[in-house]
Amino acid sequence: MMTTQEHVDQVMLQAGQAFDQYRNIDGKRRAAFLQAIADGIQADAEIIAKLAQEESNLPEARIKGEVGRTTGQLRAFAELISAGHWVQATIDTGDTSRKPLPKPDLRKMLVPVGPIVVFGASNFPLAFSTAGGDTASALAAGCSVIVKSHPAHPRTSAKVAEVIKTAMTETGMPPFVFQHVEDSSIEVGQQLVRHPLTKGVAFTGSRQGGMALVEAAARRPEPIPVFAEMSSVNPIVLLPESMRTNKELPKLLAASVLQGVGQFCTNPGLILALRGEGLDRLLDELAVEIRNSVPSKMLHRGIARIYSTLKMIALEQPGVSVLAAAAEADDEAFGAATVAIVSASDFISNAHLSEEVFGPFSLVVRCENVKELIEVVKALPGQLTGSFFGTADEIQAYDALARELQKRCGRMIFNGVPTGVEVCKAMHHGGPFPATTDARFTSVGADAIYRFARPFSFQNAPESWLPLELQNENPLQILRCVDNEWTFSEVMVVN
Amino acid sequence: MMTTQEHVDQVMLQAGQAFDQYRNIDGKRRAAFLQAIADGIQADAEIIAKLAQEESNLPEARIKGEVGRTTGQLRAFAELISAGHWVQATIDTGDTSRKPLPKPDLRKMLVPVGPIVVFGASNFPLAFSTAGGDTASALAAGCSVIVKSHPAHPRTSAKVAEVIKTAMTETGMPPFVFQHVEDSSIEVGQQLVRHPLTKGVAFTGSRQGGMALVEAAARRPEPIPVFAEMSSVNPIVLLPESMRTNKELPKLLAASVLQGVGQFCTNPGLILALRGEGLDRLLDELAVEIRNSVPSKMLHRGIARIYSTLKMIALEQPGVSVLAAAAEADDEAFGAATVAIVSASDFISNAHLSEEVFGPFSLVVRCENVKELIEVVKALPGQLTGSFFGTADEIQAYDALARELQKRCGRMIFNGVPTGVEVCKAMHHGGPFPATTDARFTSVGADAIYRFARPFSFQNAPESWLPLELQNENPLQILRCVDNEWTFSEVMVVN
Repeated sequence: MMTTQEHVDQVMLQAGQAFDQYRNIDGKRRAAFLQAIADGIQADAEIIAKLAQEESNLPEARIKGEVGRTTGQLRAFAELISAGHWVQATIDTGDTSRKPLPKPDLRKMLVPVGPIVVFGASNFPLAFSTAGGDTASALAAGCSVIVKSHPAHPRTSAKVAEVIKTAMTETGMPPFVFQHVEDSSIEVGQQLVRHPLTKGVAFTGSRQGGMALVEAAARRPEPIPVFAEMSSVNPIVLLPESMRTNKELPKLLAASVLQGVGQFCTNPGLILALRGEGLDRLLDELAVEIRNSVPSKMLHRGIARIYSTLKMIALEQPGVSVLAAAAEADDEAFGAATVAIVSASDFISNAHLSEEVFGPFSLVVRCENVKELIEVVKALPGQLTGSFFGTADEIQAYDALARELQKRCGRMIFNGVPTGVEVCKAMHHGGPFPATTDARFTSVGADAIYRFARPFSFQNAPESWLPLELQNENPLQILRCVDNEWTFSEVMVVN
Repeated sequence: MMTTQEHVDQVMLQAGQAFDQYRNIDGKRRAAFLQAIADGIQADAEIIAKLAQEESNLPEARIKGEVGRTTGQLRAFAELISAGHWVQATIDTGDTSRKPLPKPDLRKMLVPVGPIVVFGASNFPLAFSTAGGDTASALAAGCSVIVKSHPAHPRTSAKVAEVIKTAMTETGMPPFVFQHVEDSSIEVGQQLVRHPLTKGVAFTGSRQGGMALVEAAARRPEPIPVFAEMSSVNPIVLLPESMRTNKELPKLLAASVLQGVGQFCTNPGLILALRGEGLDRLLDELAVEIRNSVPSKMLHRGIARIYSTLKMIALEQPGVSVLAAAAEADDEAFGAATVAIVSASDFISNAHLSEEVFGPFSLVVRCENVKELIEVVKALPGQLTGSFFGTADEIQAYDALARELQKRCGRMIFNGVPTGVEVCKAMHHGGPFPATTDARFTSVGADAIYRFARPFSFQNAPESWLPLELQNENPLQILRCVDNEWTFSEVMVVN
C-alpha cells in the first residue's frame, strides 16, 4: 500500500504532466470542457442537490440556488476564455531601423502558472467546493487542478468529481487535468501544498485552516501564492439620520445576520453606531427580530460546536452583554441567533472582539461620539466588506470615517447589507488580511482567473510560433494594447 | 539616542500617515510629483552621474544612459497615472427592478496597498535604486515609499533622496511620502520588512539577500508580498543550422557575456547546444573574443570577490573545463571573463551548475542529442529569460524544446541575446522562482505598478463619493469595462 506521501507524489506528477498538455490547449477548447462540466452538473442536478443537502443541512432552495450559481460560474469562465480578452494581450511592434539599436518586437500575454491545489469551503458545498469558483477559474486559466475532498461533504465532492472526470474524457482533455484526493487528513493537505510541482493554492474556510496552509507554504524552498479567504466580521456603520429615517433598517440587519444561519463569509458580525435615541429604537426592533428567530441546523456538528464556544467566549469578554438571543434548540447541531452589545472603549481595548464568530452572531459597538467611532474603525483588522448606512449629507459629513473603513476592506456598500454577493465583473470579493492572505485578488467573479496566470513576453518570435492572441491578424478579435493604443484591429507590420 | 527599532517605528508611522493623505491625491497631481523628481534629477544630472560613477565604477556613458532611463521611467509612470486607464475601472450598473432581488450598482478600480519598502540594486545605482523603477511605480500607484540606502552607493542614494524630497515639497505632497533610511545594517532592513505598517517590499539583488527578506516577511503575523528579482542564468539555446549560418553569433554572444562586466540580471550564463562541427567552430570564435577581452573594474570589491569565488567553485565542479579565459588583472577589483564547458550529463547531475555566477562568466553545455538537450532544459530552475537561436524551420522542429524553455522563463527571445531590456508595455521582466519570488509581476515597464495596487469595489455609492475614474460622466475619459463592454463613453444610468 502507498503511503500518503507516495500518493501525493503520484498525484502531483500526474498533475504536472497534464499541465504540460493542457496549457497548450486553446481557450475555446478549454471553454468546451468547462461547459461540459456545467452540463454534467445540470444533468445530475437532483442527485447532486440531494447529496449536498444531506451533507450540509442547507435548505433545498438554497442548494438549488447554489447548483445554478455553480453552473453559472463555470459558464461565465467558459465565455471569458472563449472570448479571449482576459489574457491582456500587449504588443509593441519592432523597428529594425531605430538607432543606435533596433527596437525588438515584443508581445506579452498571460499564461497559466501550473498545477493548483484547491481546498473547498464547507458553507458552499457546490459553488466554492469541487467544481466551484476556484476550480473553474484555475481550469479556465489553463492550470491543472487537484481538489482535496472536503470532510464535511465527501459524497457530494466525489459525485461532482465524477461529473468533472466524465466531462474531461468527453471533451478530449488530457487525463489528470483534474484530480480528486479523497483523504480528509490534514497531513495530505500539507503535503499537497508543500509539493514542488504545486504552483498555487486556493482555500476558503477558517483563519486557522488558512494560516496552516500559509505556514506550510512558507516552509517550501520555492515560494508560491496561497489564496486563502478566511475571516471577516464585515462591519456595518449606522449613521444617526439614517437610523432615524430608514424604517427598514432593523429588519434588514436582522435578515442579514440570520441568513443561512449566519454561515456566510459576508455575515455582518459587527454593527457600529453612535449612542442616542435613534440607536435605542433600532436596537429594540432588532432585538424583537432576533428573539423571534427560530434556530436552524448548522452545516455540521463541528461548526455548531465552534459557534457555541466562540459565542460564549465573546459574551464573557469584559463589558459585553446580550442584547437579544433566540431560545437555544435542544439539539446542539442548531445555531441560535444572538446580538450582543459593548462600549467602544471596551471594544478598542480587546482585540478578541473583532474576531469572527462564524454563525448568526453580531456585536453592536455603542460609541459616545464620532471620535470614538473613528477609533473603533481604526482598531479593525482587514475585512471583506464595510457597510455604511447614511443619508447623502451624512456620507459627505463622515468622510474621514468612510476613508478609514475603505482602507480596511475590499468592498464598501452604501445603504445595504454585505450578504448577497453579486457575481459580476465589478465585484471584488477579497480584502486586506486576515479577510484574505492577498488583498490584490478576488475569489468571486471573472477576475478570479488572474490568481492563476503570469505574464509572458515573446521577443521577435516568428508569427507561426505565437499564440492566436498575439498574431498580427488578431484572429480571435480580442482587445489588445498595440503600441500603447487599445484596439481590436490587426497589427500592420512594416519592415 | 534612538535604537534602530525606534527609528524604524518612527519612519513607518510617518509612512503610514503620509499614505493616508497621499492615497487620496488624484493621478494628475501624483504625476506632477513624479515629473518634478525627473526634472530634479535632470537638473542635477552631472553631480548625480559623477557620484554614481565614483561609487559604482560604471563607465560614464553607461551612467549617463542610466540617468536618462531613470527620468524616462519616472515620466512614463507620470504619463500612465495622468492618463488614468491603468486602474482597470469596471462598472456594472444596477437594476432596481430586477426580480427576485434588485441588482446593485458595482464599480471597481485599483487602489494603492500602503507603505512600500524598497531595496535598490547595486548594478543599477540609479534606474533600480533610490528613484528607480520600484520607487517610481510604488509612488505612481499611490503608496508611500521607504528606501533603504544601498551600502554600495550611499552618497548617490542620499543625493537622489534629496532631489525627491525637494520635489515632494515643491509639488505640495504630504511630508514623509518618500523617506530615505541611511543605515546599511541588515538589521534595519529586516525591521522595515517586519513592521506591521509595511504592506509590500521590492528588492533587486542576490538570491541570498532576496530570500532573507522573504524569510523575514514569513515571520510576520500578516503576510505581505515580497517582490524580489534575484538570480537567473538566462539560458541560450543554439540550434545546428543557426550555428552554421549565423556568422554574427560568436561576436553577439561574446558581447552579451562581456557587456557591463557581466553585471546584468539578463547576462547569459548558460549556452546550450548540440555537439558537432557547427558548435566547434562557434566555440573557437567565441574563445578568441573572450581571450581578447580586457577585464574591467566591477561594481565594488565585494562583488568582484564573490565573482572570483563563484567562478572558481564552478570551474572545480566535475567535468567542467575552461574553454577560454581573459588574463586576470593585477587588481582584484577587476572581473576577467571566462567561458567554460561541460557535458549535458555532468550538468544535469549537478544543480550547482545552474546557479548564477554574477559577472562575465558563461557555461557551455554540450549535448549529445536532442533528448539530452531537452533534459538539460528540464533540469533548469526558473529564469528571467530564455533565448532560442534557430532558423524558421528549426523553431518549428524543436517545438517541444521551446515549450519546456517557455515554462521556465518570463521572456523568450528568438535569435537575439537577453541583455538589452527594452522598457515598454509589452516587456515582462520577471519569471518563475528563483528568477523572482512572484512570476505574476514585472519589475520593468508600466505594468510594474500592479505590484502595489489592490482592487476595491464600491456598491451603490453616491456619485459624489466615487473617485473620478468611476463617475458616470467619465471625466478622465479613460477606458472602462461597463456592463461587460469596453468603452470610453459615459455611463447612462436609468433608474
